[in-house]
Amino acid sequence: MITLYHCIAARSFRPLWALEELGLPYELKMLPFPPRAHERSFLAVNPLGTVPAMFDGELRMTESSAICQYLGARYGDGRLDVAVSDPDFGAYLNWLHFGEATLTFPQTLILRYERFEPPERQSPQVAHDYKRWFLGRLRTLEPVLDGRSAICAGRFTMADISVGYALLLAEYLGLAGEFPPAVARYLESLKERPAFRRAQEAEAAAAGEQGVSTVPAPLTLP
Amino acid sequence: MITLYHCIAARSFRPLWALEELGLPYELKMLPFPPRAHERSFLAVNPLGTVPAMFDGELRMTESSAICQYLGARYGDGRLDVAVSDPDFGAYLNWLHFGEATLTFPQTLILRYERFEPPERQSPQVAHDYKRWFLGRLRTLEPVLDGRSAICAGRFTMADISVGYALLLAEYLGLAGEFPPAVARYLESLKERPAFRRAQEAEAAAAGEQGVSTVPAPLTLP
Repeated sequence: MITLYHCIAARSFRPLWALEELGLPYELKMLPFPPRAHERSFLAVNPLGTVPAMFDGELRMTESSAICQYLGARYGDGRLDVAVSDPDFGAYLNWLHFGEATLTFPQTLILRYERFEPPERQSPQVAHDYKRWFLGRLRTLEPVLDGRSAICAGRFTMADISVGYALLLAEYLGLAGEFPPAVARYLESLKERPAFRRAQEAEAAAAGEQGVSTVPAPLTLP
Repeated sequence: MITLYHCIAARSFRPLWALEELGLPYELKMLPFPPRAHERSFLAVNPLGTVPAMFDGELRMTESSAICQYLGARYGDGRLDVAVSDPDFGAYLNWLHFGEATLTFPQTLILRYERFEPPERQSPQVAHDYKRWFLGRLRTLEPVLDGRSAICAGRFTMADISVGYALLLAEYLGLAGEFPPAVARYLESLKERPAFRRAQEAEAAAAGEQGVSTVPAPLTLP
């Protein structure tokens, strides 16, 4: 049985969405955000104090895009990953990393220095620097997505979950108005996937049952 | 033939090191750092303006840890990657991502707001925040590396290149004095690898031949 520790709408939404795409059974443990402040016992589960933490038997993983690739390769029968022999294998790996390292991390700077820090530690300059940084990187997606509904391999893969979550976070942050047209269409098509909706329903239901706030983590002050 | 665009000691050192570990032929194109400021023609090669940019036939990749995984899986005969069926496959993917998204990106904040920005845009607070952030994450490596010379699978893999480069960058930034003991030993053992030394020799030789500065990119003001 796979166990996933998750905060609503946080990066751990990636593996939740991946689990729903694969139709795998899993146990979903909801945490208040950020867990290292509100659920100190979680540090025994994951010393980093971050979500996701995913357990599959003795394996513990903490990197959201890596978990998606793992689940796709281990349990997907080739449906949601890209084989080493496929011409798009390199592109697949590149987008898996790009979605997190290049498109998501800069947004955490905006969150931190525009919303999460107390007023005297906020930095409009840093938030502005990384908005520009993110939107600059985002523009390079436009020609890739123009006329396409998937980022590589001609079909939906785990790489779409990696990139798609970065866009979802940007939407939470109020940046969707600056999305280029093909990027905006791509995000809308991802949100219409049944597994995406099931993942949102699953996190809301689990939060209700476990008595955890249903306010999306990116909007919650720590 | 594989072509790698690289700045001395930048993230693109990861794929350079990987190519030397695999003994693959490659063409190394050196750029001044950062290329988007000093070599505008590079934007036609890589619209992101970042290094690495790696070409293998028609494939272009830009994410350093993804390139290492690609090269290992495509050309390594299993020597430097970890098979999907291996119990450490998930750990392998996790460390590949962790090395970049969790251990390298925070250091770019230190670089930017302590060194690269003009004095009026520097932010000692942000540099301090991400030093603490990085060192906190680093502490979680100590029990993993204690008594071991590889991060997973009981042998050197591309995941060691991903994590090892993050430690090398931290050393450039003057943070090595704060490395826990097993982390410090691990970095020293990586630096003794013949392929690591060959990669450093190759970048210095190519920089000399191509008339590019041999000052490590992380220490170069843009």
